[in-house]
Amino acid sequence: MARVVVSVMPKTEILDPQGQAIERALPRLGFEGVAEVRQGKRFELEVDDSVDDATLAKIAESLLANTVIEDWTVTRLDGDA
Amino acid sequence: MARVVVSVMPKTEILDPQGQAIERALPRLGFEGVAEVRQGKRFELEVDDSVDDATLAKIAESLLANTVIEDWTVTRLDGDA
Repeated sequence: MARVVVSVMPKTEILDPQGQAIERALPRLGFEGVAEVRQGKRFELEVDDSVDDATLAKIAESLLANTVIEDWTVTRLDGDA
Repeated sequence: MARVVVSVMPKTEILDPQGQAIERALPRLGFEGVAEVRQGKRFELEVDDSVDDATLAKIAESLLANTVIEDWTVTRLDGDA
């Protein structure tokens, strides 16, 4: 079994209202110095060793991300990270 | 400026209906070998170098995660990762 992380983030050119809301809330809450916030999704998958990178890419592309507005990356974690 | 990633995941003992829905959808879509899926959030922050780890921890804890049901980790990215 391997642990895989799929990160899905809004594309740079896409507005991110959730991230912007956090960005604006921070100074109000007394946190200065944060210039930009983007909010996306993180999926953690427990997969058989038989599942190859091409399959993971297909899963990310077809099920986990909306590729019109989101970018995705797949990372295999070594050990118990 | 530094790039910081805050990962927020549902605690292990907390049910994750979104992750379970994905888990059940995968075999139906022809993807075998995925044993578990958990869905969480990923925040990317662009912060001043003056923002220290304690401040980032406070931001994650008070604003980005619901610590009753979620765990969080803060990672500083080196370079343009």
